[in-house]
Amino acid sequence: MYPTIFSSLLINQDILATKGDMGMLWILISGILVFFMQSGFTLVESGMTRSKNVVNIAMKNILDIAVGSLVYWLIGYSLMYGSSNGWIGWDGFMFNQGPADLFFQTVFCATAATIVSGAIAGRTKYSTYIVFSLVMTALIYPIAGGWQWNSNGWLANLDTPFIDFAGSSIVHSVGGWAALVGACIVGPRMGKYINGKPVIIPGHNKLLATLGVFILWLGWFGFNGGSQLAWGGNDAVSASMVILVTNLSASAGALGALFTTWLKDGKPNLDMTLNGALAGLVSITAGCGNMTEGGAVLAGLIGGILVVFSMEFIESKLKIDDAVGAVSVHGVAGAWGTLVIGLWGVDGDKAIGLFNSGSIAQLSSQAIGVLSYALWASIIAFIFFYILKKTMGLRVSKEEEIQGLDLSEHGTIAYPGKRQREIHD
Amino acid sequence: MYPTIFSSLLINQDILATKGDMGMLWILISGILVFFMQSGFTLVESGMTRSKNVVNIAMKNILDIAVGSLVYWLIGYSLMYGSSNGWIGWDGFMFNQGPADLFFQTVFCATAATIVSGAIAGRTKYSTYIVFSLVMTALIYPIAGGWQWNSNGWLANLDTPFIDFAGSSIVHSVGGWAALVGACIVGPRMGKYINGKPVIIPGHNKLLATLGVFILWLGWFGFNGGSQLAWGGNDAVSASMVILVTNLSASAGALGALFTTWLKDGKPNLDMTLNGALAGLVSITAGCGNMTEGGAVLAGLIGGILVVFSMEFIESKLKIDDAVGAVSVHGVAGAWGTLVIGLWGVDGDKAIGLFNSGSIAQLSSQAIGVLSYALWASIIAFIFFYILKKTMGLRVSKEEEIQGLDLSEHGTIAYPGKRQREIHD
Amino acid sequence: MYPTIFSSLLINQDILATKGDMGMLWILISGILVFFMQSGFTLVESGMTRSKNVVNIAMKNILDIAVGSLVYWLIGYSLMYGSSNGWIGWDGFMFNQGPADLFFQTVFCATAATIVSGAIAGRTKYSTYIVFSLVMTALIYPIAGGWQWNSNGWLANLDTPFIDFAGSSIVHSVGGWAALVGACIVGPRMGKYINGKPVIIPGHNKLLATLGVFILWLGWFGFNGGSQLAWGGNDAVSASMVILVTNLSASAGALGALFTTWLKDGKPNLDMTLNGALAGLVSITAGCGNMTEGGAVLAGLIGGILVVFSMEFIESKLKIDDAVGAVSVHGVAGAWGTLVIGLWGVDGDKAIGLFNSGSIAQLSSQAIGVLSYALWASIIAFIFFYILKKTMGLRVSKEEEIQGLDLSEHGTIAYPGKRQREIHD
Repeated sequence: MYPTIFSSLLINQDILATKGDMGMLWILISGILVFFMQSGFTLVESGMTRSKNVVNIAMKNILDIAVGSLVYWLIGYSLMYGSSNGWIGWDGFMFNQGPADLFFQTVFCATAATIVSGAIAGRTKYSTYIVFSLVMTALIYPIAGGWQWNSNGWLANLDTPFIDFAGSSIVHSVGGWAALVGACIVGPRMGKYINGKPVIIPGHNKLLATLGVFILWLGWFGFNGGSQLAWGGNDAVSASMVILVTNLSASAGALGALFTTWLKDGKPNLDMTLNGALAGLVSITAGCGNMTEGGAVLAGLIGGILVVFSMEFIESKLKIDDAVGAVSVHGVAGAWGTLVIGLWGVDGDKAIGLFNSGSIAQLSSQAIGVLSYALWASIIAFIFFYILKKTMGLRVSKEEEIQGLDLSEHGTIAYPGKRQREIHD
Repeated sequence: MYPTIFSSLLINQDILATKGDMGMLWILISGILVFFMQSGFTLVESGMTRSKNVVNIAMKNILDIAVGSLVYWLIGYSLMYGSSNGWIGWDGFMFNQGPADLFFQTVFCATAATIVSGAIAGRTKYSTYIVFSLVMTALIYPIAGGWQWNSNGWLANLDTPFIDFAGSSIVHSVGGWAALVGACIVGPRMGKYINGKPVIIPGHNKLLATLGVFILWLGWFGFNGGSQLAWGGNDAVSASMVILVTNLSASAGALGALFTTWLKDGKPNLDMTLNGALAGLVSITAGCGNMTEGGAVLAGLIGGILVVFSMEFIESKLKIDDAVGAVSVHGVAGAWGTLVIGLWGVDGDKAIGLFNSGSIAQLSSQAIGVLSYALWASIIAFIFFYILKKTMGLRVSKEEEIQGLDLSEHGTIAYPGKRQREIHD
Repeated sequence: MYPTIFSSLLINQDILATKGDMGMLWILISGILVFFMQSGFTLVESGMTRSKNVVNIAMKNILDIAVGSLVYWLIGYSLMYGSSNGWIGWDGFMFNQGPADLFFQTVFCATAATIVSGAIAGRTKYSTYIVFSLVMTALIYPIAGGWQWNSNGWLANLDTPFIDFAGSSIVHSVGGWAALVGACIVGPRMGKYINGKPVIIPGHNKLLATLGVFILWLGWFGFNGGSQLAWGGNDAVSASMVILVTNLSASAGALGALFTTWLKDGKPNLDMTLNGALAGLVSITAGCGNMTEGGAVLAGLIGGILVVFSMEFIESKLKIDDAVGAVSVHGVAGAWGTLVIGLWGVDGDKAIGLFNSGSIAQLSSQAIGVLSYALWASIIAFIFFYILKKTMGLRVSKEEEIQGLDLSEHGTIAYPGKRQREIHD
């Protein structure tokens, strides 16, 4: 009977290998989708701001992926996934656990950096931004990520482990809180506040902003779905479910913001609907593996409503000029998306939220994670932005800002043509 | 010998499971590609119309996917794939046969709604459009789809079963005929007809319209290829063949329209070449599993030629103002693509068309399907558009239409800047 | 024991079949990504040139994929992959080795043609371009490709076989050198040289050029990764590695060009950064299966620096007007990317480059390939462009060129609106 047993063992190995191969395929395709998000961010950030800063925004987004790819490969991955004491990992330079995983984690890292670039658009020095992008992709994000996604990370080893499936906190909140600090320290754009009242500075191309949001929504299927990090059997069904609830939450977020603005302002507002869709996506990013379809719809809906009021609050009450609403979309919705697991999350058939299980354990862990990431991102971003302000300088001169960063920082304009400077202010 | 047999059985199960896993992967990736089509439609519809209605078009397309995703999950899928009497299914609310399939079918449903939005662009009330989008995704499309894609559907159970592999009729014609009725009832845009003569209202951005068509072409590989609903063995080869013939038909459609306009008007026309590519895609959507490469080229070529004359006929003879040619691209080419299977279709090695088999059986079934869908979509769309006209009102006021829907319906413009209102009328 | 052995054999067959199925899936998805590059080229080429030629560029890119798809299926694939004497293949018309492979090879072929269209933008007759596109996709590219990718190709059978994994030479250099010859014969755009000095003719939309580069970068993951032509086991790891090094090289190329222009001109330049990213991609296309991560970064970095000086040299010294830098990006970086394998390439764990192995064998083979493709593409393109110039004519009239090809060749403009002609010259 030996040959039979031997053949059985071989089979199991082969089946496992096939599952591994399919998983690698899914991770790679997901990574490619996440890479595409970089162009979505470029379109959203430029479409929602003025035409005189378009080239600068493009240059910042290219930088984020270029610097991020090199730096995360050199050091970031090791800090995040290397042998860890719970707080920080290390396995030397250029460490990785396979090329597919390194690629997937790299494009995540670039996303975190890009979130910041939108908030501080239109007045930040390019040279200084390069240093910040480097710090973000080499240190701030990798260390934050390792707390949870490294199997030894301290948040992953709480009594009731913290849950952040695809990074509502790790990627989006970390990016969002760093953006808040950055926008605060660099100060509002000239003309944004007149006698303390916020002035609307409309984006110059809402069609491309819309295309950008569709590209982000598309890329998010890889962002959330790929975070399953496997394919085959239960993993295939789970990843499919992740994509289904991601789409439901985005849809609910868009409708939430659409109807909120309609009720509040009398007309359905495009900018807010776009931000609502993004907020819906961020709201399900932590919980996409722990939500029923109905739970996802509710999470996204509330995220979409929240973003409208949050943007108003930050702009009018806090008087912080976040040029594209990145703090509300990524920071606030990211915190909300992390907490909601503790409210009506599930783990397979098991209820784990306060409302559906009566236990506050998961909610507590989620709150610990939310707070920890908020503190980490704010403090460390404050330190670096402060040092950069005192050394290289954060902000361009008034003349350069009025002229536009495209001309002053890059010596060109986005839409050359006889009258461009008159048409798009 | 028992263990051996036992191991063999296990193996077969494992191989089947692997095939299932690969199928799910393909369906999901295809669904993601089809989702992207929503942004293609947004670009084509806005690029081919005036800049004063861009925000409105973006808001309609976001709505289609957002409302469609929620409503199809709640009720549409059940009406389409639930236990059916041949005409309509039902298995309760939130019924589905797996998350990957629900996601794939959802993005199909959103496509059908979006087709209508293009034809009635520039004069339709947003609030009314919301209701129509809801009716389309909750009722009109799901019931139509169930006739064929539900295994108990009456068209799937004709003596010679109706063939519509990926939806030339079910998605495109249903969308196209509903668009025809809508464009008819809402009436032409102001200034479209002067003394009964059609006036050309040029689109404001042909580069983005071109990008939109490339995105649609790309998404169509998922639309048609994913409709194999499986991967592995024969399914892998079949799905590859589907994608090959889809690309050939689109290419032939583009060239068909390009040379037709060149011969007819003296110059090769971009708008028509774009519509020709789309018509080529629609023309192969029903038959992409039942065509040789040569048959696909011919189907697409004729579809591309047809669309040129159809658009002219609808605009000049019928005097119906279809702002982007949706009726010709989706309705007419959809009917053609359904019928062509009955002319030179194949089923594996077997000829089933009139010209290659001599039998009229398949053509008859195809004609029954084409007629049934045309009647269903026209009548039901007429009823709903008529009710909406009499209750909420279909059309904005003259002042609002002149001003543009972006300003009147959404309180903003697409390209803010000092002189935008002068530049783009 | 027979049943056991029998079952074992069955298993191995099944595992092989599964590997084949996964390979087909990867090839198809990669082909879909490569197809998307066509829209990337359209955006880069129009964004980097003037608005009066946008429609013409769109029409050329649609033509390349449409004509290429038909012609490559009819004849090109057979010339490239049919039974070959080492120089040219033939297995009759409509020959293919499976639909997935034919589709994948088709979109490669369309890419080679499109490279030429950018260099000669703004002054070439559309009717003549059609003939050239046909020659390129039916003859020039397929024959070139067969020398290496046909298993009997003479370059694949050198003593030390030539290496060009995904086509730095076969696709990009062949396109680039044909573009050089084309730009040379058609002559510079009016006003490009005043008293022998080159005048900058700025592109009209740098945001869309940026989007185009992101789309190309995205598509390149399919271009290089899909060239593994298989998935599963070592192939899965290899293809993942291909994608990782592709991203690293693109990142390094972007940074190389960014900092080169900063040092040289005082400001970081967007156009050059975009071209640097593309040059980084081209520089790794031949060697993506034969490079360490560090080797890829270095290859891309040098490619990105090279492209800045190459563009200057071609424009200022050779006085050839390459409207979008296609010769430098595809031709020069393509040659560099082919040669670099002979400098520090690896084959698994084995060093094969001059610097890491001390042997010049591989470098010699790479140089033979680079020269052969340069000669083939230049000579054959020269013959056809010359014949076309003497028969149909290559260039539009001065009046037509001033007016713009959109109006003169296609009877329309890209951005209709009251003042478009004034705004975008």
